[in-house]
Parts: sequence; C-alpha cells; structure tokens
Amino acid sequence: MVEHNGVVLVLSGPSGAGKSSLINKIADDIGEYYFSISTTTRPMREGEEEGVHYHFVSKEEFKKDIAENNFLEYATVHENYYGTSLNPVREALNKGKLVIFDIDVQGNTAINNRLGDITTSVFITPPSLSELKNRLESRATDSKEVIENRLKMAKREIQRTSEYEFLVINDDLDIAANVLRQIAITARLKIPYDRINRFVQKWENI
Amino acid sequence: MVEHNGVVLVLSGPSGAGKSSLINKIADDIGEYYFSISTTTRPMREGEEEGVHYHFVSKEEFKKDIAENNFLEYATVHENYYGTSLNPVREALNKGKLVIFDIDVQGNTAINNRLGDITTSVFITPPSLSELKNRLESRATDSKEVIENRLKMAKREIQRTSEYEFLVINDDLDIAANVLRQIAITARLKIPYDRINRFVQKWENI
Repeated sequence: MVEHNGVVLVLSGPSGAGKSSLINKIADDIGEYYFSISTTTRPMREGEEEGVHYHFVSKEEFKKDIAENNFLEYATVHENYYGTSLNPVREALNKGKLVIFDIDVQGNTAINNRLGDITTSVFITPPSLSELKNRLESRATDSKEVIENRLKMAKREIQRTSEYEFLVINDDLDIAANVLRQIAITARLKIPYDRINRFVQKWENI
Repeated sequence: MVEHNGVVLVLSGPSGAGKSSLINKIADDIGEYYFSISTTTRPMREGEEEGVHYHFVSKEEFKKDIAENNFLEYATVHENYYGTSLNPVREALNKGKLVIFDIDVQGNTAINNRLGDITTSVFITPPSLSELKNRLESRATDSKEVIENRLKMAKREIQRTSEYEFLVINDDLDIAANVLRQIAITARLKIPYDRINRFVQKWENI
C-alpha cells in the first residue's frame, strides 16, 4: 500500500452540537491526531487559556501573518480576526496525523479549496433547534444574548449542511460517536493528489 | 438518526485489478447490496449469461431506452452501446441497498453528476502495469490482442485516478479487502440531499 500520510477531518455545527464530547469519545480509536487551534485577535475571556481555546494575538501580528500568507483560512467577525495558521497544520500532516478542525461553514469551504483531496467534512447537529436551545440553556455558561446569537447562527449554518460529505445527528451520544468514529477511521484512507501522481508515474515502469 | 437510505459505491479500475475477488471477500460484511448489471448491444460471447455478465439487447431496444431517458449513463464503444438502466438502480436505492457499480472512468463521472450526494467512488488498481500484465496473462482467458487492449486502457484510466475519493492498491488481497470493506461500510452513512433538506426544514420546528 501507499505509505501513510496526513489527512483532514472538518467538524462543523452549532456550539452545543456536542463536537467536543464526540471527539473525546472517539479519541482513543482514531490514531494520532492534531486538533487545530484557531488564532484570534479578540480579547481572552475568563476561563480561556492561550493555546487551548485559541492562540491570542494582536491585530498587528495577525495582519503580518496575512501578508506573509501564513493562514490556511481566516475571516473577520465583529471587527476581530479569526484564522487557522498553516504551519502547525502542515507539520501535523507531514507526521501523518489526522488533523481535526472545529470550524464554521466558511472555514470548511476554505479548507476544501486548499486540501480537498485529503479532507473529509462532517456537519454535526442536535436533532432540533429546540433541543439545541435546551442544551445551551442548561449548560448555563452563556448569557441570554450569546445564546440567541448562537441559535441565529445555527439556523443559518444548518442551511448549508449539504456542502458536507456527512451529516451526523447527535441525538444519542453513543450512536453519534459510533458514526463519527467510522467516518474518522475511513478519512485516514484518503491519499493526497501529489502522492497519487507519484504512484501513477511509477506505475507504468515497475 | 435519519432513516436508512440507499447509497452508491462506484468501483473502477482495469480488468485484472481484482474487483470481483474483492467484492466476494467483503460481500458478507456490507449489508444488503445490489450489483448493477450493465446493458449492451454487443453480441453475447461464449461463457456469458444474460443478466449475469450483461443484459443483452438489440440496438433498437437500446435506442428506444435512450429516447425514453431510461439510462443513468451510457456510452458507445466500437459501435456498440453500453449503459446502466435507471430503473433497477432506483428500485434498489428505494429499498435502502448499497448499489455497487463496476464501471469505467466516464461512467463514474456520469454517476457522480446524477447521484453525487450518495456516491462513494473507489479506483482499484494492481500495484504496477507489469503485475497487471502478469495477472491477465496467467488467467489465460483473453487473447493477446485483448490483453494489449486492456493494458492500453489501464494506462489511460490510471491517469484519472485522482477523480476518485479513494485509491485502493490491490497488492495483497486481504489488505485491499480490509480497506474496501471499511470504505463500503462508511459509504452507508451518506444521506441524500432531499432527505437532508427535509430534515433541515423540520429542524427549526420541532
């Protein structure tokens, strides 16, 4: 078989869909992975940690990285920048890791444009908007306003579910984890175009 | 979860890649499937059976089916027609089956245009052209001329491997079967756009 290579798993879906719980459930079964941490210029909030929730940088640093083409993708939301640095992703891919992104619908488009050959995309959603509302309210970490915003965003994002290869409805956590585990393990089997091309070139001559 | 639905698995690759052996190896593990039988206007050859190797029809019948839009895809090769009838595929999909196509690169394009949302495509290849030649010669069913033609076609088709979601290099049959089994089981998880759309429409109101 062709030697091992890094691949990408994009997870999108509303905050409250259960992405983190699902990743925790399958983490031991999907081999070595790297969870991509986004970079942002927004201020650190209480309870957040540098390098865990985000890499926090100044606007100047962010703009410099844009100019130097250091982002796989970036976007502005409410005058703050959010982006994914290319270097750690490239490094993880070179080590043959599964790189997992928790990223929005726009981010998925950007990643597919750059790394579509090795990317598997999954949209994760709670079974209904009312269930999402319940979950966000019961975890009690967000203000009413933040919850309203998350629900509005969820309504917009779910309209674009069909841009993903897979839709996982997280109703029962164990069932959803079984589905996502299956998808993540198969995601490993994608082979990058450049490696395919090298194989094809060799193919006629050995 | 969303109710069960039919999905498509396209297998392409040169004659001699081992597609039939691989399907036999995994047949017990992939749930109910329907292996699509092509329709052709070329004469039946010795050892071939109607409904097993092909559906054999006259040119008049074939043209009538084209006119009535009864083909999922069709093509002409050496003045003979080859095609896939829509009806049995649609029936199998409605029963929630995995529909398997053994079809060429053009056929894969056509199926992806029509059923891309539920299609998983796999290119299966022997590890090298010389190994393909060995296999074709040692099975001794084809004339020298037919083998030469198959090798020419293989060289052309392998150039388009990157149009497939997965490349499976059939060097060791057991390893290749494990890979294909994994892909086929995950192929089951694809959900058709129309079902996703119905889910999204319901999603906000339950």
